[in-house]
Amino acid sequence: MSRKLKTGVIGLGRIGQIHLSNLLHHMPDAEVIIASDVSEASHEFAKRLGVKQVTTDAYEVINHPDVEAVIICSPTPYHVPYTVAAAEQGKHVFCEKPLDVTIEAILAAEKAVAENGVKLMLGFNRRFDANFSNVRNLVENNKIGDPHILRITSRDPAPPPVEYLKISGGIFLDMSIHDFDMARYIVGSEVKEVFVKGDALIHPEIKEFGDIDTAVIVLTFENGAIGVIDNSRKAVYGYDQRLEIFGSKGMAKAENNTTDSLIHFDSAGGHSALPLHFFLERYETAYRVCLKSFIDCVLQDKPSPVDAHDGLMATAIGIAAMKSLTEGRTVQINEVLELSHV
Amino acid sequence: MSRKLKTGVIGLGRIGQIHLSNLLHHMPDAEVIIASDVSEASHEFAKRLGVKQVTTDAYEVINHPDVEAVIICSPTPYHVPYTVAAAEQGKHVFCEKPLDVTIEAILAAEKAVAENGVKLMLGFNRRFDANFSNVRNLVENNKIGDPHILRITSRDPAPPPVEYLKISGGIFLDMSIHDFDMARYIVGSEVKEVFVKGDALIHPEIKEFGDIDTAVIVLTFENGAIGVIDNSRKAVYGYDQRLEIFGSKGMAKAENNTTDSLIHFDSAGGHSALPLHFFLERYETAYRVCLKSFIDCVLQDKPSPVDAHDGLMATAIGIAAMKSLTEGRTVQINEVLELSHV
Amino acid sequence: MSRKLKTGVIGLGRIGQIHLSNLLHHMPDAEVIIASDVSEASHEFAKRLGVKQVTTDAYEVINHPDVEAVIICSPTPYHVPYTVAAAEQGKHVFCEKPLDVTIEAILAAEKAVAENGVKLMLGFNRRFDANFSNVRNLVENNKIGDPHILRITSRDPAPPPVEYLKISGGIFLDMSIHDFDMARYIVGSEVKEVFVKGDALIHPEIKEFGDIDTAVIVLTFENGAIGVIDNSRKAVYGYDQRLEIFGSKGMAKAENNTTDSLIHFDSAGGHSALPLHFFLERYETAYRVCLKSFIDCVLQDKPSPVDAHDGLMATAIGIAAMKSLTEGRTVQINEVLELSHV
Amino acid sequence: MSRKLKTGVIGLGRIGQIHLSNLLHHMPDAEVIIASDVSEASHEFAKRLGVKQVTTDAYEVINHPDVEAVIICSPTPYHVPYTVAAAEQGKHVFCEKPLDVTIEAILAAEKAVAENGVKLMLGFNRRFDANFSNVRNLVENNKIGDPHILRITSRDPAPPPVEYLKISGGIFLDMSIHDFDMARYIVGSEVKEVFVKGDALIHPEIKEFGDIDTAVIVLTFENGAIGVIDNSRKAVYGYDQRLEIFGSKGMAKAENNTTDSLIHFDSAGGHSALPLHFFLERYETAYRVCLKSFIDCVLQDKPSPVDAHDGLMATAIGIAAMKSLTEGRTVQINEVLELSHV
Repeated sequence: MSRKLKTGVIGLGRIGQIHLSNLLHHMPDAEVIIASDVSEASHEFAKRLGVKQVTTDAYEVINHPDVEAVIICSPTPYHVPYTVAAAEQGKHVFCEKPLDVTIEAILAAEKAVAENGVKLMLGFNRRFDANFSNVRNLVENNKIGDPHILRITSRDPAPPPVEYLKISGGIFLDMSIHDFDMARYIVGSEVKEVFVKGDALIHPEIKEFGDIDTAVIVLTFENGAIGVIDNSRKAVYGYDQRLEIFGSKGMAKAENNTTDSLIHFDSAGGHSALPLHFFLERYETAYRVCLKSFIDCVLQDKPSPVDAHDGLMATAIGIAAMKSLTEGRTVQINEVLELSHV
Repeated sequence: MSRKLKTGVIGLGRIGQIHLSNLLHHMPDAEVIIASDVSEASHEFAKRLGVKQVTTDAYEVINHPDVEAVIICSPTPYHVPYTVAAAEQGKHVFCEKPLDVTIEAILAAEKAVAENGVKLMLGFNRRFDANFSNVRNLVENNKIGDPHILRITSRDPAPPPVEYLKISGGIFLDMSIHDFDMARYIVGSEVKEVFVKGDALIHPEIKEFGDIDTAVIVLTFENGAIGVIDNSRKAVYGYDQRLEIFGSKGMAKAENNTTDSLIHFDSAGGHSALPLHFFLERYETAYRVCLKSFIDCVLQDKPSPVDAHDGLMATAIGIAAMKSLTEGRTVQINEVLELSHV
Repeated sequence: MSRKLKTGVIGLGRIGQIHLSNLLHHMPDAEVIIASDVSEASHEFAKRLGVKQVTTDAYEVINHPDVEAVIICSPTPYHVPYTVAAAEQGKHVFCEKPLDVTIEAILAAEKAVAENGVKLMLGFNRRFDANFSNVRNLVENNKIGDPHILRITSRDPAPPPVEYLKISGGIFLDMSIHDFDMARYIVGSEVKEVFVKGDALIHPEIKEFGDIDTAVIVLTFENGAIGVIDNSRKAVYGYDQRLEIFGSKGMAKAENNTTDSLIHFDSAGGHSALPLHFFLERYETAYRVCLKSFIDCVLQDKPSPVDAHDGLMATAIGIAAMKSLTEGRTVQINEVLELSHV
Repeated sequence: MSRKLKTGVIGLGRIGQIHLSNLLHHMPDAEVIIASDVSEASHEFAKRLGVKQVTTDAYEVINHPDVEAVIICSPTPYHVPYTVAAAEQGKHVFCEKPLDVTIEAILAAEKAVAENGVKLMLGFNRRFDANFSNVRNLVENNKIGDPHILRITSRDPAPPPVEYLKISGGIFLDMSIHDFDMARYIVGSEVKEVFVKGDALIHPEIKEFGDIDTAVIVLTFENGAIGVIDNSRKAVYGYDQRLEIFGSKGMAKAENNTTDSLIHFDSAGGHSALPLHFFLERYETAYRVCLKSFIDCVLQDKPSPVDAHDGLMATAIGIAAMKSLTEGRTVQINEVLELSHV
């Protein structure tokens, strides 16, 4: 374990900064050779943390002779181009979600990664949260029996600005995509069809460009299980991240994590804490465990825990969900995949 | 409050015995004049509790000159005939759910009740459970804001025998009907469409006669809220009766009641009690409060808290759910109602 | 099970009415021959429930030739005289707590019961609460290992009037005595010494007559365990009845029961229900199970689950606690017993 | 906020490493000039984190001309000598608990700090845990009213080796001292007397050198509140760190933090996670917040949040507790202080 993985970080926005800090402070098996961001303003952050080389050009990171693995935290449209370029340079890739919003691009990335024999891991960090990975362990260890019903509640504390929503790719690819990945992860089976009921109950104006902010999504799995996801862009009490799996031998549910474990009783009742505010607080540890498992997978030459196929399926479910919403019917995942000749 | 309501009880099966005991032991404002059951074996129960007159003929109860109100606990096919007969005799009626499995019969009962100016209350006892009525209070008092998402989990501890299932009318009218009533009650708005995804995951053989044992039901309400019910005929950990309402101002959820509030910690973890086993334990108090509110509504001449329209809508949702399952599409409640020329 | 125990009830105050209702409505193995109360006003209650004979004279109950067992719910000073008189008549006795506030009187009752070969059971109803009896089961089944630390929290929602407090016998014999019995029951070992720290923090004026309303009581058990009871006469959030046993193999705690299992989240936090208000609500079922076990113990000739020795020890701990408060030192239970030549 | 506090760290054991990592990774307002440890083996840790100067001589840290503040993590006997030396050099001091086990030494440190006008902060990290600081906030904001009863449960998952226990200074100064500080912090009033009941129930052999492993400690506060601490060296289910404050307006309790928020139900019951294993996991964030508040107090010239007086009182309560255990009586804190002519 004395060898250190030499990494380069592309993109120093909110998530890029988290990954960079984790690499520098919590990953004794990794070092950071170089970091890039188009905005020079964010270079200061990297320098203060001790990164020696900083650039505005992502390709300087990808092509740097010392870099073995690239951490891609750029905006979504750059995910596949950088992944392909890195793979062609023989570099391993950790890429933020979603890999892409089109199936064609994802397949191109998958091909480049396979042809060049490098690892690709996607940043579906929630899989590495202790609540959810422990639920998955129970399913894997057959403590739940055959899965019958999956319930995921995933609600954000506040919607992004409408301007952002316009370019977000829609709720399914922007927000629910995490839940689609979680659903496949927990149940351990592929989704075969999707039905959506949704509405814009918070910001009715976003319906103009075809988006919604409140959704109930029914998933049918190949193993017979039925799943339900409920999404909202605005839970006034904070970030609501719960799930439950019910099967022939029992049920497991993951509740929210809260800011403290205090209960206060007065004559009006009991009062307890809010959930942790948003993803930075809620998944602080999960981000670390997620990145750590990428470094381990490269250094120990293990399979990627979240690979291009996982990205493909999450995006395909998202596209099918949008189709279901628009056409008011159940949509098969195969319809979406076949349209792309997968 | 010195006047006592003179009642007669029809049907001394499991539910009939509960209502009879409650009338005798917990309703100082009521007295029981006469009780009936086709089986003489059950007469002993009523006699032991002190009921003076017992008969095998329901019409002796309905026509008894001293009886002001009839409590109908007979099998479902008799609900409407007895209701109509009682109404025509000017008797008030408390009737177990469902009022009927056809819309036509329900309308006939509604008409008889209206024409004769008597009260009709349906035994949707769960509305009178403290957990759920307190959630409803929060919605009514605008503590939740506009309702956006309703979630109901309703799972039985063990399925009835397959022989029973064959004549049960199907999961929607036999089991989910309570949840349909609950959904309307909590949200305070009519359901306008239904989508169902279901399967027979516990007893695959029941698919032969068109039934299922695991269901996810999506409801769309006229006020824009979206609801999800998940049902299972078999939760090995007991009777699972939870719900959650989420809206623009907050969220309220009712958890299961348990056999005790004990937590035991050993080196393997924390261990806590199971939910109360089944409906008799879970809704013991709710049965009492429900019947009490019927007696109050008659004695104080208040509107029935759960009337024929409530029975009509619960059944209509059940019929629409079956149609959705069979046809694999979203079904409008109006389709079902219009078929019956409502 | 066809034989019914013929009982008579003495005292129709709050507790007497509970026992009478339970006998009539929930004890098919018992019947009530006669009831008494010095106040004729309370006779109406018994008559309405169907009791045929009612009297102002307790001895009419005790001496009634048909009565096999007497339920004593009179004020404390009458407990022992009635118990002794009933025993001498060969009647079994169920007596409310405390049996008496002096050790001498308790010993007299114990002697009369033993000499006449009748059963005596004391109404320490909390032992029959599901939370606490399940904790006791864990201890008995060695799930906790050797008991090391016992914690009891027992707080009333509101103090009785100061006028009552003056004649109550003090907090230890009036209120903590239930906790003393619970401590012995849970730990399964005798208390050997007591230390008390207390104050009148709610009604400072009661210090004038030597009483307090807030107490922390340390108990040392013969098996080495150490116990702590904290009492308050006024918990503004309701009746607080919790306990915890900690031992070499684990820990078990019983939390409060609440009015519902609802949690409401808004932007200020989570909000949950208050504990059940007071003993009538909290121990409704325990009163029933307690009385039922008396009837079973008589009909099936089993040992009394709570006998005169239990009453003796609870009172002795109460006397020792008062002594500890007054003298500011640890007091041995043996000191108290030896003073009475036990 | 552009100025950085120049610090030196003395002692690179378990706690020293935590503080050093936090300074380097989480304190942008601080830098580390030099670190020391008598063992060269631990120097590697500091170097790997990027500390430029490392020494075996604590006085090189204290006397280093660039060091403004010293973080003392050496064994307890060195706390006061280093504190005094640093103060005399005009350096601010953050010192691990306990400041010392004798009152005389603490007073000497307090004097040196006062005379040299430097800050001294003690590492009572638990005060900075969100659960406990939020309870304190409720007390400060008068949400609890007048405090009546304080309960602290503080149990370690496993005892240290008996060899360590022999030189630990006894349970009160080694383990309970955190609880004594917490008691004063939560109640906001001085402790005036102590009563202890304790035993060696886990390792009976430690009684030979006057120590115990199970204790119930009753504290009386100057404001009238009564406190109870229960301690055990061995809770098989993990680190048990709970507290509760009860007062005239309500009650607040802090429950344990757990490894996850999962609940698993099978036919045997509900199963939930263990508490976080021990102090490193439980107080990970508290260590950070604690050290951060020292840096803030120096840079912003604010009063020390935990000063020499706090150290004095915690130690005095510990000495009084030992005296109470030995002499079997309530001990006044003033007795202990007066013996030292405070």
